[in-house]
Amino acid sequence: MNYTAIFETAVDALRREKRYRVFADIERIAGRFPHALWHAPDGPREIVVWCSNDYLGMGQHPASIAAMVEAAQQLGVGAGGTRNISGNSHQVVMLEHELADLHGKPAALVFTSGYVSNQTGISTIGRLLPDGLILSDQLNHNSMIEGVRQSGCEKAIFRHNDLDHLEDLLRKAGKERPKLIAFESVYSMDGDIAPIGRICDLAERYNAMTYLDEVHAVGMYGARGGGIAERDGEMGRVDVIEGTLAKAFGTLGGYIAANAPIIDAVRSHAPGFIFTSALPPAVAAAAQASVRHLKVSQSERAAQQANAARTKAALADAGLPVTISETHIVPVTVGDAERCKAASDLLLAEHGIYIQPINYPTVPRGTERLRITPTPFHDEALIAELTRALVAVWRKLDLPFRLRAAAE
Amino acid sequence: MNYTAIFETAVDALRREKRYRVFADIERIAGRFPHALWHAPDGPREIVVWCSNDYLGMGQHPASIAAMVEAAQQLGVGAGGTRNISGNSHQVVMLEHELADLHGKPAALVFTSGYVSNQTGISTIGRLLPDGLILSDQLNHNSMIEGVRQSGCEKAIFRHNDLDHLEDLLRKAGKERPKLIAFESVYSMDGDIAPIGRICDLAERYNAMTYLDEVHAVGMYGARGGGIAERDGEMGRVDVIEGTLAKAFGTLGGYIAANAPIIDAVRSHAPGFIFTSALPPAVAAAAQASVRHLKVSQSERAAQQANAARTKAALADAGLPVTISETHIVPVTVGDAERCKAASDLLLAEHGIYIQPINYPTVPRGTERLRITPTPFHDEALIAELTRALVAVWRKLDLPFRLRAAAE
Ligand SMILES: Cc1ncc(COP(=O)(O)O)c(C=O)c1O
Ligand SMILES: Cc1ncc(COP(=O)(O)O)c(C=O)c1O
Repeated sequence: MNYTAIFETAVDALRREKRYRVFADIERIAGRFPHALWHAPDGPREIVVWCSNDYLGMGQHPASIAAMVEAAQQLGVGAGGTRNISGNSHQVVMLEHELADLHGKPAALVFTSGYVSNQTGISTIGRLLPDGLILSDQLNHNSMIEGVRQSGCEKAIFRHNDLDHLEDLLRKAGKERPKLIAFESVYSMDGDIAPIGRICDLAERYNAMTYLDEVHAVGMYGARGGGIAERDGEMGRVDVIEGTLAKAFGTLGGYIAANAPIIDAVRSHAPGFIFTSALPPAVAAAAQASVRHLKVSQSERAAQQANAARTKAALADAGLPVTISETHIVPVTVGDAERCKAASDLLLAEHGIYIQPINYPTVPRGTERLRITPTPFHDEALIAELTRALVAVWRKLDLPFRLRAAAE
Repeated sequence: MNYTAIFETAVDALRREKRYRVFADIERIAGRFPHALWHAPDGPREIVVWCSNDYLGMGQHPASIAAMVEAAQQLGVGAGGTRNISGNSHQVVMLEHELADLHGKPAALVFTSGYVSNQTGISTIGRLLPDGLILSDQLNHNSMIEGVRQSGCEKAIFRHNDLDHLEDLLRKAGKERPKLIAFESVYSMDGDIAPIGRICDLAERYNAMTYLDEVHAVGMYGARGGGIAERDGEMGRVDVIEGTLAKAFGTLGGYIAANAPIIDAVRSHAPGFIFTSALPPAVAAAAQASVRHLKVSQSERAAQQANAARTKAALADAGLPVTISETHIVPVTVGDAERCKAASDLLLAEHGIYIQPINYPTVPRGTERLRITPTPFHDEALIAELTRALVAVWRKLDLPFRLRAAAE
């Protein structure tokens, strides 16, 4: 038996399906976002990034950079241990207070990523519920799916944002059985939004707990950046709110916010929290600076929404198959892995525009897309350039326009 | 049914067993390690940390701090996306080259932590092996156990470092079945070392793959800090070497190094790698600076070994129940969760010495201990202070000395 051949075969299958991933080697330039350096095979070139999840550009905000720099100089570059064994920095403790306050919850717990928050958070909560049932939205993120799986709980998948289906499943389970409803606020690939209030209504009616992933909403929605639940006035009704520090907050890490007994139980029982080194204080300090800034500043949120609306309008006007989402996420459908990659390659090579192709397993086959994320820094000139480039690529690859080719 | 009560009960059980964890709130002081600020209930106090996993003090090394500061200023505080979607910074790519070179392997892959490296690395490799069997050392770290569990493979646990038992299990499985032997080099709670060469002999004889966790050895052993496998001249025979950037390298993140097909398969298939934001370039830059420094500098390794030897000798001379390990890890046994916590509390409150108690589930019940980690910065004066403080605490709590009470 040849081990190397096994691993080669596992990769060849992806190549045949045209979904082998090649990572673009990008060097960010603080202060010039979304401009960046692309380390192309033939040398570095300047490009414009249109697919960043640094949604508000906080990754380059002077306050966040200053916080990281100051903390690195004063405290060093690492935590030095797990949270329990010498790694519990004051900066992480303060960040947790900041996040609890953001979501109006008594407590919060920081993890090394949003992925780990979901994986070890959901699995630990699930394991603590006797005979627990987890009701999970069909389009939940892989980190939630893994959390559900590792909980060992029975699971019931409800159709995406389908309240009737969810109610059916809740009714079948009955009021007495411990139940956790796990869902997201903004679904990141389509940019649609869950009906949080009505899911909470059902949770109350059937006595279920709610676990809400606000990874693609924190910092961006609500008067203080508390997410869609804040915008909708529903934060107090959601039992556990999960978020990331790596998207709108611009750095790294994840968290849950909830009442003290839930946080203490996860803190005390979650293996993915206990047995790993803590976030460096410098990262926690940068995250805290971002969270604080976005609690009071409205300008980033306003500019992001304005630029997202402009981008959607410009692409629609040009006849491109853009999904008019309710959020800052602007998906343009290609529907085929190979052509999606070709479109992305052409945009980068010929137009200096970087939009990663999104293929299976991140989205269902047949819905391959370019996922565009306008930020406060993608201004009208950049939007016009993007539109021209997409139209040129669509023509060159003979991709379908929505109605007719854009008028020239 | 009352959800809050469920979570309260889950924590009360820990309180009753005296293993409820309280995190000491510590503020590191770059340039003064192992001195730190303890945010005590009655205000901040200066203490000496004796349980850091920043084993060589690289968390405060000027080169690592400068690298983080410079990268934060030039590139910002975050990656801005997953590795595939706009988060693949040049700094992470260069770090991977540095790590591949460190272990003499063609390729390496960086994760957000050592925990995630093991969890998603082992589970992905295991899932790709048809009818795979994972042979796992009984004392493997939780992250490896989770990786094995999530692989869905059959598993066989061999007694800790027991070559005969491992051989029995390999023989039973037969040469034809795909097999992965998962083990650590330095076991972090006892400080003992695996017989890497002899495990590789068995792997070759029975045609098994080897996966070696060098988390507590990288940076510290081998002429370039490649770990115990480098020290023993066995790096080329181990298929996958896993390490962390959060202990001797002083910052955050984890990695595996292996041949290109293995790395490419994990890169392409591991959910815990694919669906999470990448390490910030500033963290990768700091890690790269540490790895580079420790490839050439011997002084940190030499001073660490010298101070560890001095500490073991001083504690043994004082009659304290210290385990004379082969490595830099110095365990002092208490054998009871409550008394272990009491000893730790007294050391902190009365002597300004911070050594976290290590209780179940991190170590087996009955082996609760203080785990002491001397670094290059724990000099003779600090060792003498530590010894005096431990003797005072042992007397006050009437803990057993090894032979007789220390002579006065
Ligand atoms: C819905 C959702 N939850 C969680 C995560 C993971 O967050 P993080 O990148 O912080 O690991 C992601 C994406 O990365 C996501 O899209
Ligand atoms: C043996 C071992 N492997 C892996 C890890 C996880 O590494 P990290 O702290 O980088 O997550 C640890 C401890 O944290 C460990 O002791």
